[in-house]
Amino acid sequence: MTPAEHAQLALLLEVAGTPKPGNVDRDRDFPDLRFEHFLTGAVGSGAGLRAAEADASVGEAFEESVAGMSQQSGGNTQFGALCLLVPLVKATAEKTCSPESASEVVEGTTVEDAVGFYRAFDHVNVFVDDPPEGADEFDVRRGSDAVPAIREAGLTWYDVMELGANEDGIAHEWTSGFERTFEAGERIAELDGSLSGRGARVYLELLAHEPDTLVAKKHGKKTAESVRVRAQEALQEVRKGEPELLHAFSDSLVENGINPGTTADIVAGGLFVALERGIRP
Amino acid sequence: MTPAEHAQLALLLEVAGTPKPGNVDRDRDFPDLRFEHFLTGAVGSGAGLRAAEADASVGEAFEESVAGMSQQSGGNTQFGALCLLVPLVKATAEKTCSPESASEVVEGTTVEDAVGFYRAFDHVNVFVDDPPEGADEFDVRRGSDAVPAIREAGLTWYDVMELGANEDGIAHEWTSGFERTFEAGERIAELDGSLSGRGARVYLELLAHEPDTLVAKKHGKKTAESVRVRAQEALQEVRKGEPELLHAFSDSLVENGINPGTTADIVAGGLFVALERGIRP
Repeated sequence: MTPAEHAQLALLLEVAGTPKPGNVDRDRDFPDLRFEHFLTGAVGSGAGLRAAEADASVGEAFEESVAGMSQQSGGNTQFGALCLLVPLVKATAEKTCSPESASEVVEGTTVEDAVGFYRAFDHVNVFVDDPPEGADEFDVRRGSDAVPAIREAGLTWYDVMELGANEDGIAHEWTSGFERTFEAGERIAELDGSLSGRGARVYLELLAHEPDTLVAKKHGKKTAESVRVRAQEALQEVRKGEPELLHAFSDSLVENGINPGTTADIVAGGLFVALERGIRP
Repeated sequence: MTPAEHAQLALLLEVAGTPKPGNVDRDRDFPDLRFEHFLTGAVGSGAGLRAAEADASVGEAFEESVAGMSQQSGGNTQFGALCLLVPLVKATAEKTCSPESASEVVEGTTVEDAVGFYRAFDHVNVFVDDPPEGADEFDVRRGSDAVPAIREAGLTWYDVMELGANEDGIAHEWTSGFERTFEAGERIAELDGSLSGRGARVYLELLAHEPDTLVAKKHGKKTAESVRVRAQEALQEVRKGEPELLHAFSDSLVENGINPGTTADIVAGGLFVALERGIRP
Protein backbone atom coordinates (compact mmCIF):
# COMPACT_ATOMS: atom_id res chain seq x y z
CA MET A 1 0.00 0.00 0.00
CA THR A 2 1.05 3.58 -0.62
CA PRO A 3 1.48 6.15 2.20
CA ALA A 4 -1.90 7.71 1.31
CA GLU A 5 -3.58 4.31 1.59
CA HIS A 6 -1.89 3.70 4.93
CA ALA A 7 -3.18 7.06 6.14
CA GLN A 8 -6.72 6.27 5.06
CA LEU A 9 -6.51 2.86 6.72
CA ALA A 10 -5.10 4.46 9.89
CA LEU A 11 -8.22 6.67 10.08
CA LEU A 12 -10.43 3.60 9.80
CA LEU A 13 -8.47 1.46 12.27
CA GLU A 14 -8.46 4.32 14.77
CA VAL A 15 -12.23 4.65 14.88
CA ALA A 16 -12.68 0.85 14.83
CA GLY A 17 -10.73 0.42 18.10
CA THR A 18 -12.86 -0.04 21.22
CA PRO A 19 -13.32 0.99 23.96
CA LYS A 20 -11.93 4.46 23.37
CA PRO A 21 -13.38 6.32 26.35
CA GLY A 22 -15.28 9.45 25.35
CA ASN A 23 -15.04 8.97 21.61
CA VAL A 24 -17.01 7.32 18.84
CA ASP A 25 -15.70 3.81 18.31
CA ARG A 26 -16.76 0.45 16.93
CA ASP A 27 -19.18 0.04 19.85
CA ARG A 28 -20.21 3.67 20.38
CA ASP A 29 -22.23 6.19 18.38
CA PHE A 30 -23.30 9.63 19.55
CA PRO A 31 -26.74 10.86 18.47
CA ASP A 32 -25.38 13.25 15.82
CA LEU A 33 -21.91 11.84 15.28
CA ARG A 34 -21.86 8.22 14.30
CA PHE A 35 -19.34 5.57 13.35
CA GLU A 36 -20.43 5.82 9.73
CA HIS A 37 -19.60 9.54 9.65
CA PHE A 38 -16.00 8.56 10.37
CA LEU A 39 -16.08 5.90 7.64
CA THR A 40 -17.37 8.55 5.22
CA GLY A 41 -14.76 11.05 6.40
CA ALA A 42 -12.00 8.52 5.77
CA VAL A 43 -13.23 7.82 2.24
CA GLY A 44 -13.67 11.53 1.50
CA SER A 45 -10.20 12.48 2.69
CA GLY A 46 -8.60 9.97 0.32
CA ALA A 47 -8.13 12.35 -2.60
CA GLY A 48 -6.35 14.94 -0.41
CA LEU A 49 -4.10 12.27 1.05
CA ARG A 50 -3.22 11.10 -2.45
CA ALA A 51 -2.49 14.70 -3.40
CA ALA A 52 -0.05 14.86 -0.46
CA GLU A 53 1.85 11.85 -1.77
CA ALA A 54 1.84 13.26 -5.31
CA ASP A 55 3.00 16.81 -5.83
CA ALA A 56 0.53 19.05 -4.01
CA SER A 57 1.86 21.32 -1.27
CA VAL A 58 1.05 20.34 2.32
CA GLY A 59 -1.45 23.17 2.73
CA GLU A 60 -3.23 22.43 -0.54
CA ALA A 61 -3.40 18.68 0.21
CA PHE A 62 -4.66 19.41 3.71
CA GLU A 63 -7.44 21.68 2.50
CA GLU A 64 -8.46 19.08 -0.09
CA SER A 65 -8.50 16.29 2.49
CA VAL A 66 -10.61 18.33 4.93
CA ALA A 67 -13.02 19.38 2.18
CA GLY A 68 -13.38 15.70 1.25
CA MET A 69 -13.75 14.61 4.88
CA SER A 70 -16.59 17.08 5.37
CA GLN A 71 -18.95 15.41 2.89
CA GLN A 72 -21.08 13.91 5.66
CA SER A 73 -23.53 15.30 8.16
CA GLY A 74 -21.64 14.44 11.37
CA GLY A 75 -19.37 17.49 11.27
CA ASN A 76 -15.72 17.37 12.23
CA THR A 77 -14.58 13.78 12.27
CA GLN A 78 -10.85 13.78 11.48
CA PHE A 79 -9.52 17.36 11.15
CA GLY A 80 -6.84 16.90 13.81
CA ALA A 81 -5.81 13.49 12.56
CA LEU A 82 -5.37 14.90 9.04
CA CYS A 83 -3.20 17.69 10.47
CA LEU A 84 -0.78 14.94 11.45
CA LEU A 85 -1.32 12.55 8.56
CA VAL A 86 -0.96 14.96 5.64
CA PRO A 87 2.63 16.01 6.51
CA LEU A 88 3.47 12.42 7.49
CA VAL A 89 2.27 11.15 4.10
CA LYS A 90 4.27 13.84 2.31
CA ALA A 91 7.41 13.09 4.34
CA THR A 92 7.07 9.35 3.73
CA ALA A 93 6.43 9.76 0.01
CA GLU A 94 9.37 12.14 -0.40
CA LYS A 95 11.88 10.47 1.94
CA THR A 96 11.04 8.21 4.86
CA CYS A 97 8.56 7.84 7.67
CA SER A 98 10.76 9.36 10.38
CA PRO A 99 10.64 12.24 12.86
CA GLU A 100 13.39 13.97 10.86
CA SER A 101 11.58 13.82 7.52
CA ALA A 102 8.32 14.90 9.14
CA SER A 103 10.04 17.86 10.80
CA GLU A 104 11.64 18.80 7.52
CA VAL A 105 8.23 18.90 5.84
CA VAL A 106 6.53 21.02 8.50
CA GLU A 107 9.51 23.35 8.98
CA GLY A 108 9.58 23.83 5.22
CA THR A 109 5.96 25.00 5.01
CA THR A 110 5.27 28.36 3.38
CA VAL A 111 2.78 31.19 3.72
CA GLU A 112 0.68 29.50 1.03
CA ASP A 113 0.56 26.35 3.17
CA ALA A 114 -0.77 28.48 6.04
CA VAL A 115 -3.41 29.80 3.63
CA GLY A 116 -4.48 26.20 2.88
CA PHE A 117 -4.69 25.49 6.60
CA TYR A 118 -6.91 28.53 7.21
CA ARG A 119 -9.10 27.73 4.22
CA ALA A 120 -9.67 24.24 5.61
CA PHE A 121 -11.59 25.83 8.49
CA ASP A 122 -14.18 27.07 5.97
CA HIS A 123 -15.26 23.49 5.29
CA VAL A 124 -16.08 22.31 8.78
CA ASN A 125 -16.77 23.55 12.28
CA VAL A 126 -13.68 22.75 14.39
CA PHE A 127 -13.55 23.37 18.11
CA VAL A 128 -10.67 25.77 18.74
CA ASP A 129 -9.87 27.89 21.77
CA ASP A 130 -9.33 31.65 21.72
CA PRO A 131 -6.04 32.62 20.09
CA PRO A 132 -3.09 33.81 22.24
CA GLU A 133 -3.35 37.43 23.41
CA GLY A 134 -2.73 39.92 20.65
CA ALA A 135 -3.17 37.28 17.93
CA ASP A 136 -6.87 37.84 17.23
CA GLU A 137 -6.32 38.58 13.57
CA PHE A 138 -4.73 35.16 13.16
CA ASP A 139 -7.65 33.35 14.83
CA VAL A 140 -8.05 30.13 12.82
CA ARG A 141 -11.80 30.29 13.37
CA ARG A 142 -11.87 33.18 10.90
CA GLY A 143 -10.97 30.68 8.18
CA SER A 144 -10.17 32.29 4.86
CA ASP A 145 -11.11 35.72 6.27
CA ALA A 146 -7.80 35.64 8.12
CA VAL A 147 -5.80 35.01 4.93
CA PRO A 148 -4.94 38.68 4.21
CA ALA A 149 -3.55 39.09 7.76
CA ILE A 150 -1.55 35.87 7.39
CA ARG A 151 -0.14 36.96 4.04
CA GLU A 152 0.71 40.42 5.36
CA ALA A 153 2.47 39.02 8.41
CA GLY A 154 4.23 36.45 6.22
CA LEU A 155 3.36 33.60 8.59
CA THR A 156 4.09 30.07 7.41
CA TRP A 157 1.91 27.15 8.53
CA TYR A 158 4.71 26.16 10.88
CA ASP A 159 4.72 29.67 12.40
CA VAL A 160 0.98 29.39 13.01
CA MET A 161 1.39 26.02 14.70
CA GLU A 162 4.20 27.40 16.87
CA LEU A 163 1.78 30.01 18.19
CA GLY A 164 -0.44 27.21 19.51
CA ALA A 165 2.15 24.61 20.51
CA ASN A 166 1.80 25.19 24.25
CA GLU A 167 -1.93 24.67 24.31
CA ASP A 168 -2.63 22.31 21.45
CA GLY A 169 -1.48 18.71 21.27
CA ILE A 170 -1.48 18.63 17.47
CA ALA A 171 0.52 21.85 17.15
CA HIS A 172 2.91 20.41 19.73
CA GLU A 173 3.48 17.39 17.49
CA TRP A 174 4.45 19.71 14.66
CA THR A 175 7.09 21.47 16.76
CA SER A 176 8.47 18.37 18.51
CA GLY A 177 9.28 16.03 15.62
CA PHE A 178 5.91 14.29 16.00
CA GLU A 179 7.22 12.85 19.26
CA ARG A 180 4.08 11.27 20.69
CA THR A 181 2.92 10.12 17.23
CA PHE A 182 6.11 8.13 16.64
CA GLU A 183 6.13 6.80 20.20
CA ALA A 184 2.55 5.64 19.71
CA GLY A 185 3.54 4.03 16.40
CA GLU A 186 6.45 2.09 17.91
CA ARG A 187 4.23 0.99 20.79
CA ILE A 188 1.48 -0.18 18.41
CA ALA A 189 4.09 -2.09 16.42
CA GLU A 190 5.33 -3.94 19.51
CA LEU A 191 1.91 -4.92 20.89
CA ASP A 192 0.05 -8.08 19.84
CA GLY A 193 -3.45 -8.64 18.52
CA SER A 194 -5.64 -6.77 16.08
CA LEU A 195 -4.40 -3.37 14.96
CA SER A 196 -7.59 -1.60 15.98
CA GLY A 197 -7.32 -3.24 19.42
CA ARG A 198 -3.73 -2.09 19.76
CA GLY A 199 -4.85 1.41 18.81
CA ALA A 200 -7.45 1.40 21.59
CA ARG A 201 -4.84 0.22 24.08
CA VAL A 202 -2.36 2.93 23.11
CA TYR A 203 -5.16 5.51 23.26
CA LEU A 204 -5.65 4.60 26.93
CA GLU A 205 -1.92 4.65 27.60
CA LEU A 206 -1.52 8.10 26.01
CA LEU A 207 -4.55 9.42 27.88
CA ALA A 208 -3.11 8.10 31.16
CA HIS A 209 0.19 9.79 30.45
CA GLU A 210 -0.72 13.34 29.40
CA PRO A 211 -3.86 15.47 29.67
CA ASP A 212 -5.79 15.70 26.41
CA THR A 213 -5.56 19.26 25.07
CA LEU A 214 -9.00 19.23 23.45
CA VAL A 215 -10.51 18.34 26.83
CA ALA A 216 -8.41 21.10 28.46
CA LYS A 217 -9.69 23.67 25.96
CA LYS A 218 -13.33 22.65 26.25
CA HIS A 219 -13.54 21.86 29.96
CA GLY A 220 -10.45 23.37 31.59
CA LYS A 221 -7.08 22.02 32.63
CA LYS A 222 -8.36 20.60 35.92
CA THR A 223 -10.87 18.39 34.14
CA ALA A 224 -8.23 17.27 31.63
CA GLU A 225 -5.89 16.30 34.48
CA SER A 226 -8.68 14.46 36.30
CA VAL A 227 -9.44 12.53 33.09
CA ARG A 228 -5.75 11.63 32.89
CA VAL A 229 -5.71 10.29 36.47
CA ARG A 230 -8.86 8.26 35.87
CA ALA A 231 -7.39 6.87 32.64
CA GLN A 232 -4.34 5.82 34.64
CA GLU A 233 -6.51 4.02 37.19
CA ALA A 234 -8.48 2.30 34.43
CA LEU A 235 -5.24 1.26 32.73
CA GLN A 236 -3.91 -0.27 35.96
CA GLU A 237 -7.07 -2.35 36.24
CA VAL A 238 -6.87 -3.38 32.59
CA ARG A 239 -3.30 -4.56 33.20
CA LYS A 240 -4.66 -6.83 35.94
CA GLY A 241 -7.15 -8.22 33.42
CA GLU A 242 -10.08 -6.27 34.88
CA PRO A 243 -11.81 -4.09 32.26
CA GLU A 244 -14.84 -3.02 34.37
CA LEU A 245 -13.38 0.30 35.49
CA LEU A 246 -12.42 1.11 31.89
CA HIS A 247 -16.00 0.64 30.74
CA ALA A 248 -17.37 2.70 33.65
CA PHE A 249 -14.81 5.43 32.89
CA SER A 250 -15.83 5.34 29.24
CA ASP A 251 -19.54 5.68 30.04
CA SER A 252 -18.88 8.51 32.47
CA LEU A 253 -16.92 10.54 29.91
CA VAL A 254 -19.75 10.14 27.42
CA GLU A 255 -22.36 11.18 30.00
CA ASN A 256 -20.35 14.32 30.70
CA GLY A 257 -19.73 15.11 27.04
CA ILE A 258 -15.96 14.80 27.40
CA ASN A 259 -14.20 13.57 24.26
CA PRO A 260 -10.41 13.33 24.28
CA GLY A 261 -10.17 13.97 20.56
CA THR A 262 -6.53 14.99 20.39
CA THR A 263 -5.45 11.70 21.90
CA ALA A 264 -7.49 9.87 19.25
CA ASP A 265 -5.80 11.95 16.54
CA ILE A 266 -2.38 10.94 17.81
CA VAL A 267 -3.43 7.29 17.75
CA ALA A 268 -4.39 7.71 14.08
CA GLY A 269 -0.92 9.10 13.43
CA GLY A 270 0.60 6.22 15.39
CA LEU A 271 -1.35 3.66 13.39
CA PHE A 272 0.04 5.22 10.22
CA VAL A 273 3.59 4.86 11.56
CA ALA A 274 2.95 1.22 12.51
CA LEU A 275 1.53 0.45 9.05
CA GLU A 276 4.62 2.06 7.51
CA ARG A 277 6.73 -0.23 9.75
CA GLY A 278 5.12 -3.17 7.94
CA ILE A 279 2.51 -4.09 10.54
CA ARG A 280 -0.76 -4.88 8.80
CA PRO A 281 -4.15 -6.45 9.48
CA MET B 1 -18.09 12.06 -4.08
CA THR B 2 -17.12 10.21 -7.24
CA PRO B 3 -18.56 6.79 -8.18
CA ALA B 4 -15.32 5.12 -7.02
CA GLU B 5 -15.59 6.83 -3.64
CA HIS B 6 -19.22 5.77 -3.34
CA ALA B 7 -18.19 2.19 -4.09
CA GLN B 8 -15.46 2.26 -1.44
CA LEU B 9 -17.90 3.76 1.07
CA ALA B 10 -20.49 1.12 0.15
CA LEU B 11 -17.99 -1.61 1.06
CA LEU B 12 -17.42 0.04 4.45
CA LEU B 13 -21.09 0.70 5.20
CA GLU B 14 -21.94 -2.88 4.28
CA VAL B 15 -19.56 -4.42 6.80
CA ALA B 16 -20.51 -1.82 9.44
CA GLY B 17 -24.18 -2.87 9.42
CA THR B 18 -25.22 -5.16 12.26
CA PRO B 19 -26.56 -7.74 12.89
CA LYS B 20 -25.87 -9.43 9.56
CA PRO B 21 -26.50 -13.06 10.47
CA GLY B 22 -23.58 -15.32 9.57
CA ASN B 23 -21.22 -12.59 8.42
CA VAL B 24 -18.55 -10.33 9.90
CA ASP B 25 -20.15 -7.07 10.94
CA ARG B 26 -19.61 -4.15 13.29
CA ASP B 27 -20.31 -6.46 16.26
CA ARG B 28 -18.86 -9.72 14.95
CA ASP B 29 -15.35 -10.96 14.17
CA PHE B 30 -14.41 -14.50 13.21
CA PRO B 31 -11.10 -15.85 14.53
CA ASP B 32 -9.28 -15.47 11.21
CA LEU B 33 -11.51 -12.99 9.42
CA ARG B 34 -12.03 -9.78 11.28
CA PHE B 35 -13.78 -6.46 10.79
CA GLU B 36 -10.44 -4.78 10.19
CA HIS B 37 -9.67 -7.12 7.29
CA PHE B 38 -12.74 -5.69 5.57
CA LEU B 39 -11.61 -2.12 6.33
CA THR B 40 -8.23 -2.97 4.80
CA GLY B 41 -9.87 -4.64 1.80
CA ALA B 42 -11.96 -1.52 1.18
CA VAL B 43 -8.91 0.75 1.29
CA GLY B 44 -6.90 -1.60 -0.92
CA SER B 45 -9.59 -1.89 -3.58
CA GLY B 46 -9.72 1.91 -3.98
CA ALA B 47 -7.14 2.14 -6.77
CA GLY B 48 -8.95 -0.49 -8.88
CA LEU B 49 -12.28 1.26 -8.36
CA ARG B 50 -10.72 4.55 -9.44
CA ALA B 51 -9.30 2.78 -12.50
CA ALA B 52 -12.87 1.67 -13.35
CA GLU B 53 -14.10 5.26 -13.31
CA ALA B 54 -11.11 6.42 -15.35
CA ASP B 55 -10.30 4.56 -18.55
CA ALA B 56 -9.32 1.03 -17.54
CA SER B 57 -11.33 -1.85 -18.95
CA VAL B 58 -13.72 -3.62 -16.57
CA GLY B 59 -11.54 -6.72 -16.37
CA GLU B 60 -8.35 -4.75 -15.76
CA ALA B 61 -10.00 -2.58 -13.08
CA PHE B 62 -11.48 -5.67 -11.44
CA GLU B 63 -8.15 -7.46 -11.28
CA GLU B 64 -6.53 -4.34 -9.81
CA SER B 65 -9.25 -3.93 -7.20
CA VAL B 66 -9.02 -7.59 -6.13
CA ALA B 67 -5.21 -7.44 -5.97
CA GLY B 68 -5.53 -4.35 -3.77
CA MET B 69 -8.25 -5.92 -1.61
CA SER B 70 -6.03 -8.92 -0.95
CA GLN B 71 -3.33 -6.97 0.91
CA GLN B 72 -4.48 -8.30 4.29
CA SER B 73 -4.28 -11.63 6.03
CA GLY B 74 -8.03 -12.37 6.30
CA GLY B 75 -8.37 -13.74 2.78
CA ASN B 76 -11.36 -13.06 0.57
CA THR B 77 -13.27 -10.13 1.98
CA GLN B 78 -15.03 -8.43 -0.94
CA PHE B 79 -14.45 -10.37 -4.20
CA GLY B 80 -18.16 -10.81 -4.93
CA ALA B 81 -19.01 -7.23 -3.99
CA LEU B 82 -16.32 -5.94 -6.36
CA CYS B 83 -17.77 -8.12 -9.15
CA LEU B 84 -20.87 -5.96 -8.85
CA LEU B 85 -19.26 -2.63 -7.98
CA VAL B 86 -16.61 -2.44 -10.69
CA PRO B 87 -19.12 -2.58 -13.61
CA LEU B 88 -21.52 -0.32 -11.67
CA VAL B 89 -18.77 2.28 -11.18
CA LYS B 90 -17.86 2.11 -14.86
CA ALA B 91 -21.50 2.42 -15.96
CA THR B 92 -22.06 5.38 -13.62
CA ALA B 93 -18.89 7.16 -14.67
CA GLU B 94 -19.64 6.66 -18.37
CA LYS B 95 -23.41 7.24 -18.34
CA THR B 96 -25.72 6.79 -15.37
CA CYS B 97 -26.29 4.52 -12.42
CA SER B 98 -29.09 2.47 -14.00
CA PRO B 99 -29.84 -1.15 -14.85
CA GLU B 100 -29.57 -0.27 -18.55
CA SER B 101 -26.10 1.29 -18.27
CA ALA B 102 -24.87 -1.54 -16.08
CA SER B 103 -26.16 -4.13 -18.56
CA GLU B 104 -24.51 -2.26 -21.41
CA VAL B 105 -21.17 -2.41 -19.60
CA VAL B 106 -21.31 -6.12 -18.80
CA GLU B 107 -22.74 -7.11 -22.17
CA GLY B 108 -19.94 -5.13 -23.79
CA THR B 109 -17.17 -7.01 -22.01
CA THR B 110 -14.48 -8.65 -24.13
CA VAL B 111 -12.27 -11.71 -23.99
CA GLU B 112 -9.59 -9.52 -22.37
CA ASP B 113 -12.07 -8.62 -19.61
CA ALA B 114 -12.58 -12.34 -19.01
CA VAL B 115 -8.80 -12.67 -18.76
CA GLY B 116 -8.77 -9.98 -16.04
CA PHE B 117 -11.53 -11.81 -14.18
CA TYR B 118 -9.59 -15.11 -14.27
CA ARG B 119 -6.37 -13.42 -13.23
CA ALA B 120 -8.13 -11.94 -10.21
CA PHE B 121 -8.47 -15.49 -8.84
CA ASP B 122 -4.66 -15.67 -8.61
CA HIS B 123 -4.69 -13.03 -5.85
CA VAL B 124 -7.05 -14.60 -3.36
CA ASN B 125 -8.71 -17.87 -2.47
CA VAL B 126 -12.39 -17.59 -3.46
CA PHE B 127 -14.92 -20.29 -2.67
CA VAL B 128 -16.36 -21.47 -5.97
CA ASP B 129 -18.33 -24.58 -6.83
CA ASP B 130 -17.39 -27.08 -9.54
CA PRO B 131 -17.96 -25.71 -13.04
CA PRO B 132 -20.91 -26.93 -15.13
CA GLU B 133 -20.41 -30.32 -16.78
CA GLY B 134 -18.00 -30.21 -19.71
CA ALA B 135 -16.65 -26.77 -18.69
CA ASP B 136 -13.69 -27.97 -16.62
CA GLU B 137 -11.18 -26.06 -18.72
CA PHE B 138 -13.00 -22.82 -17.88
CA ASP B 139 -12.98 -23.52 -14.12
CA VAL B 140 -12.34 -20.10 -12.55
CA ARG B 141 -10.36 -21.76 -9.77
CA ARG B 142 -7.61 -22.34 -12.32
CA GLY B 143 -7.06 -18.58 -12.37
CA SER B 144 -4.65 -17.42 -15.06
CA ASP B 145 -3.95 -21.08 -16.01
CA ALA B 146 -7.35 -21.08 -17.69
CA VAL B 147 -6.53 -18.02 -19.81
CA PRO B 148 -5.34 -19.92 -22.93
CA ALA B 149 -8.59 -21.94 -22.96
CA ILE B 150 -10.64 -18.75 -22.54
CA ARG B 151 -8.78 -17.03 -25.37
CA GLU B 152 -9.10 -20.05 -27.64
CA ALA B 153 -12.83 -20.33 -27.00
CA GLY B 154 -13.21 -16.56 -27.41
CA LEU B 155 -15.30 -16.25 -24.23
CA THR B 156 -16.06 -12.74 -22.97
CA TRP B 157 -16.45 -12.04 -19.25
CA TYR B 158 -20.22 -11.88 -19.86
CA ASP B 159 -20.14 -15.33 -21.50
CA VAL B 160 -18.34 -16.72 -18.45
CA MET B 161 -20.90 -15.21 -16.10
CA GLU B 162 -23.74 -16.61 -18.22
CA LEU B 163 -22.32 -20.10 -17.66
CA GLY B 164 -22.80 -19.63 -13.91
CA ALA B 165 -25.96 -17.52 -13.81
CA ASN B 166 -28.22 -20.36 -12.67
CA GLU B 167 -26.13 -21.24 -9.66
CA ASP B 168 -24.42 -18.01 -8.66
CA GLY B 169 -26.19 -14.93 -7.33
CA ILE B 170 -23.52 -12.54 -8.58
CA ALA B 171 -23.47 -14.01 -12.09
CA HIS B 172 -27.26 -13.78 -12.04
CA GLU B 173 -27.02 -10.04 -11.34
CA TRP B 174 -24.84 -9.65 -14.43
CA THR B 175 -27.39 -11.35 -16.66
CA SER B 176 -30.52 -9.75 -15.15
CA GLY B 177 -29.72 -6.02 -15.28
CA PHE B 178 -28.48 -6.12 -11.67
CA GLU B 179 -32.08 -6.66 -10.63
CA ARG B 180 -31.66 -7.41 -6.93
CA THR B 181 -28.87 -4.84 -6.56
CA PHE B 182 -31.06 -2.00 -7.82
CA GLU B 183 -34.05 -3.24 -5.82
CA ALA B 184 -31.86 -3.28 -2.71
CA GLY B 185 -30.65 0.24 -3.54
CA GLU B 186 -34.15 1.65 -3.91
CA ARG B 187 -35.20 -0.06 -0.69
CA ILE B 188 -32.17 1.36 1.20
CA ALA B 189 -33.00 4.81 -0.17
CA GLU B 190 -36.58 4.63 1.12
CA LEU B 191 -35.77 3.37 4.64
CA ASP B 192 -34.90 5.68 7.56
CA GLY B 193 -31.97 5.74 9.93
CA SER B 194 -28.25 5.18 9.54
CA LEU B 195 -27.12 3.83 6.18
CA SER B 196 -25.29 0.90 7.72
CA GLY B 197 -28.44 0.05 9.70
CA ARG B 198 -30.54 0.19 6.54
CA GLY B 199 -28.01 -2.10 4.87
CA ALA B 200 -28.38 -4.66 7.67
CA ARG B 201 -32.17 -4.51 7.37
CA VAL B 202 -32.12 -5.03 3.61
CA TYR B 203 -29.65 -7.89 4.07
CA LEU B 204 -32.25 -9.65 6.21
CA GLU B 205 -35.04 -8.89 3.75
CA LEU B 206 -33.02 -10.24 0.82
CA LEU B 207 -32.04 -13.33 2.80
CA ALA B 208 -35.71 -13.94 3.68
CA HIS B 209 -36.69 -13.63 0.05
CA GLU B 210 -34.21 -15.81 -1.83
CA PRO B 211 -31.78 -18.56 -0.80
CA ASP B 212 -28.17 -17.35 -0.68
CA THR B 213 -26.20 -18.99 -3.49
CA LEU B 214 -22.91 -19.10 -1.55
CA VAL B 215 -24.68 -21.05 1.21
CA ALA B 216 -26.22 -23.33 -1.43
CA LYS B 217 -22.81 -24.07 -2.94
CA LYS B 218 -21.10 -24.71 0.36
CA HIS B 219 -23.87 -26.50 2.27
CA GLY B 220 -26.45 -27.58 -0.31
CA LYS B 221 -29.73 -26.14 -1.53
CA LYS B 222 -31.73 -27.58 1.36
CA THR B 223 -29.65 -25.69 3.91
CA ALA B 224 -29.87 -22.49 1.87
CA GLU B 225 -33.66 -22.79 1.76
CA SER B 226 -33.82 -23.49 5.48
CA VAL B 227 -31.71 -20.37 6.14
CA ARG B 228 -34.15 -18.41 3.99
CA VAL B 229 -37.14 -19.63 5.98
CA ARG B 230 -35.44 -18.84 9.26
CA ALA B 231 -34.50 -15.37 8.00
CA GLN B 232 -38.17 -14.85 7.14
CA GLU B 233 -39.22 -15.85 10.65
CA ALA B 234 -36.60 -13.56 12.18
CA LEU B 235 -37.75 -10.71 9.93
CA GLN B 236 -41.37 -11.18 11.01
CA GLU B 237 -40.29 -10.89 14.66
CA VAL B 238 -38.15 -7.82 13.91
CA ARG B 239 -41.18 -6.18 12.30
CA LYS B 240 -43.06 -6.71 15.58
CA GLY B 241 -40.16 -4.98 17.38
CA GLU B 242 -38.74 -8.22 18.74
CA PRO B 243 -35.10 -8.73 17.78
CA GLU B 244 -34.36 -11.79 19.98
CA LEU B 245 -34.96 -14.39 17.27
CA LEU B 246 -32.74 -12.43 14.87
CA HIS B 247 -29.84 -12.56 17.32
CA ALA B 248 -30.40 -16.28 18.01
CA PHE B 249 -30.54 -16.93 14.25
CA SER B 250 -27.34 -14.95 13.80
CA ASP B 251 -25.50 -16.91 16.52
CA SER B 252 -26.71 -20.22 15.12
CA LEU B 253 -25.44 -19.44 11.61
CA VAL B 254 -22.04 -18.56 13.04
CA GLU B 255 -21.94 -21.76 15.13
CA ASN B 256 -22.63 -23.76 11.99
CA GLY B 257 -20.16 -21.88 9.82
CA ILE B 258 -22.85 -20.64 7.46
CA ASN B 259 -22.12 -17.27 5.89
CA PRO B 260 -24.57 -15.86 3.34
CA GLY B 261 -21.86 -13.94 1.54
CA THR B 262 -23.66 -13.39 -1.76
CA THR B 263 -26.49 -11.59 0.01
CA ALA B 264 -23.93 -9.31 1.69
CA ASP B 265 -22.36 -8.60 -1.71
CA ILE B 266 -25.72 -7.53 -3.11
CA VAL B 267 -26.22 -5.21 -0.13
CA ALA B 268 -22.87 -3.57 -0.92
CA GLY B 269 -24.10 -3.03 -4.49
CA GLY B 270 -27.39 -1.68 -3.14
CA LEU B 271 -25.59 0.76 -0.84
CA PHE B 272 -23.68 2.05 -3.87
CA VAL B 273 -26.95 2.64 -5.71
CA ALA B 274 -28.44 4.45 -2.70
CA LEU B 275 -25.35 6.68 -2.40
CA GLU B 276 -25.64 7.48 -6.10
CA ARG B 277 -29.29 8.43 -5.46
CA GLY B 278 -27.97 11.12 -3.11
CA ILE B 279 -28.50 9.33 0.21
CA ARG B 280 -25.48 9.89 2.43
CA PRO B 281 -24.38 9.51 6.04
